[in-house]
Amino acid sequence: MSERFKFEIKATDGKARTGVIRMLRGEIRTPAFMPVGTAATVKAMRVEDVRATGADIILGNTYHLMLRPSAERVAKLGGLHRFMNWHRPILTDSGGYQVMSLSSLRKITEEGVSFASHIDGSRHNLTPERSMEIQRLLGSDIVMAFDECTPHPASHEVAGKSMRMSMRWAKRSRAGFDSGEEHASRAALFGIQQGSLYKDLRKESAERLTEIGFDGYAIGGLAVGEGQGPMFDVLDYAPGFLPQDRPRYLMGVGKPDDIVGAVLRGVDMFDCVLPTRSGRNGQAFTCEGPVNIRNAKHKEDSGPLDPSCSCPVCTTYSRAYLHHLVKAGEILGAMLMTQHNIHFYQSMMQGLRDAIAEGRVEAHAKAFLDRYKGGQDG
Amino acid sequence: MSERFKFEIKATDGKARTGVIRMLRGEIRTPAFMPVGTAATVKAMRVEDVRATGADIILGNTYHLMLRPSAERVAKLGGLHRFMNWHRPILTDSGGYQVMSLSSLRKITEEGVSFASHIDGSRHNLTPERSMEIQRLLGSDIVMAFDECTPHPASHEVAGKSMRMSMRWAKRSRAGFDSGEEHASRAALFGIQQGSLYKDLRKESAERLTEIGFDGYAIGGLAVGEGQGPMFDVLDYAPGFLPQDRPRYLMGVGKPDDIVGAVLRGVDMFDCVLPTRSGRNGQAFTCEGPVNIRNAKHKEDSGPLDPSCSCPVCTTYSRAYLHHLVKAGEILGAMLMTQHNIHFYQSMMQGLRDAIAEGRVEAHAKAFLDRYKGGQDG
Repeated sequence: MSERFKFEIKATDGKARTGVIRMLRGEIRTPAFMPVGTAATVKAMRVEDVRATGADIILGNTYHLMLRPSAERVAKLGGLHRFMNWHRPILTDSGGYQVMSLSSLRKITEEGVSFASHIDGSRHNLTPERSMEIQRLLGSDIVMAFDECTPHPASHEVAGKSMRMSMRWAKRSRAGFDSGEEHASRAALFGIQQGSLYKDLRKESAERLTEIGFDGYAIGGLAVGEGQGPMFDVLDYAPGFLPQDRPRYLMGVGKPDDIVGAVLRGVDMFDCVLPTRSGRNGQAFTCEGPVNIRNAKHKEDSGPLDPSCSCPVCTTYSRAYLHHLVKAGEILGAMLMTQHNIHFYQSMMQGLRDAIAEGRVEAHAKAFLDRYKGGQDG
Repeated sequence: MSERFKFEIKATDGKARTGVIRMLRGEIRTPAFMPVGTAATVKAMRVEDVRATGADIILGNTYHLMLRPSAERVAKLGGLHRFMNWHRPILTDSGGYQVMSLSSLRKITEEGVSFASHIDGSRHNLTPERSMEIQRLLGSDIVMAFDECTPHPASHEVAGKSMRMSMRWAKRSRAGFDSGEEHASRAALFGIQQGSLYKDLRKESAERLTEIGFDGYAIGGLAVGEGQGPMFDVLDYAPGFLPQDRPRYLMGVGKPDDIVGAVLRGVDMFDCVLPTRSGRNGQAFTCEGPVNIRNAKHKEDSGPLDPSCSCPVCTTYSRAYLHHLVKAGEILGAMLMTQHNIHFYQSMMQGLRDAIAEGRVEAHAKAFLDRYKGGQDG
């Protein structure tokens, strides 16, 4: 591995690993949680506050950015980092997942996907080559291969066909990425394992990806409605099919207990809209479980959102104030709740990293989950 | 004057004055602009960022706070300063203006006003005594007398009757304020001049208020649709009726050119929702006039919002990025536009204070307005 991308595993504890990814724009401590910055902003947060929570890397969405303001415009303005003033690593997804969940009038062929924008109905195409071009124009540090996120549930036959098309697309993604030589000398490319809930397909997918060769490997097609039990069943074997010495990224996951369980099973990277979206909707994540701040029981509570949290929100404001802001629809409510939630996620990751380094991750996870699940107020 | 409230005029230049109000919670440099923190938040801004713009004092709205979360609850939680984490002076209005503009099913009598909440239709009363009690419960530093903001236009007869009732209410406000001895030993009370556009009524109102005696005097009933010309006509004489050695506060004003003109006419304090509300709507105030960031001409503009501005928004982000955020409905757009606008207003006040201190306010005002009015893009 070059200076461009280097993954060092510093300690393992059971299947869990902690380490660091070194890239030209900075280091990423793993296991890592990547806040989602969909449209060139982590919603309701200033980028310096995102960093202050401990985030080493954020995620940008190819689908949203290609539609607005467009990859070409971002490139003209100096790339995504300069545009949004985040100068550390950015991972961009391939657009495939959002095309399936947000656009309309979709047509999928071997070539790629054509679809209508959810913003203005305009027609667009995404292919492995175009996805690589868009991510290059954005100036992404970690580029994701273009794939089809197999819908759930899927029969073995459907899942196999979908996975094999994704593997052919992965090969085209590799070629497309490599053709952008200047960008390829600075960025990394991750492949995405598919195969739904089928062990043989997950294995086949991992083999095909490893043959092509990527800097890191994502586990795709989970957290799509299958539930935590079936997801953990897949995570009991799927990471093991992927190269030990490369980072493993579980896409779109998840709730705190999902992440803890996945780290125990050997996953290194995560992203999810949950802390930001929940924050805007008045839900906080705390060491004692989720808290719905709209609940009337908080209206005169002078205590902090999370008694164990050291974030600027918890050390400054009362639950009563946050309750008031959220009930009144004040933007500051969304700002503060989001800030706390991202801080909570980053603290959780730091706790996991420390525990793995010290060989006590099982006990740490149990204590964390006991407290988290014991205090839920729904 | 006690330590509680001391106004020192440091320099005059024509009718314009610059000085400082010293209160127990901090100093207020005049001429001062007070950002509006309606519901215990300056909308879309963190309170530390409000301070960083140079604001010495903010305004809270009695009407909004009495309805949600209620003055009693704020008191129980330690007062408005602790609730919202702003530990410098807060001026609270009396609620009279918002009752007239926001509530429904109003009934005005000599006793006061009864009305239905715009939030849930619940019925409430506001009287001079209750307004003083609410502002005391909030822990306000500068309390405003309860008055009727005479609607515009008003005949001389209607304006006179309305003004005289407000003067009787001013006397009751004084008594109500003084009865809260502990709070009165820490806070200040301002009277409000009424009289619509009639010079004799403005004079009579000022005399009645001065007879009662207040720490400062507001000029009320302007910026209610009469236009800048008639407002400036009143400001040519109305401030002169008020005591020279007390601060004069023009309520609810205004646009940058309104404020500059009022400072030249001897006004010391201002508040207005314009910089915050406009910010949320995509309008920026700049040294070259208002800028509508939604305008397509900004979509690839890599320059700052305001070329003369040193605020964190202008030194960090492009117009293209702000255009993108506002068009996409991102909360960060409202946050950054508001932050710039409040910074612009505070810089404008600092420029006026410096110019008055240096005896060059006429030339300063002309240069400011020439540039401001020359560059408007609508």
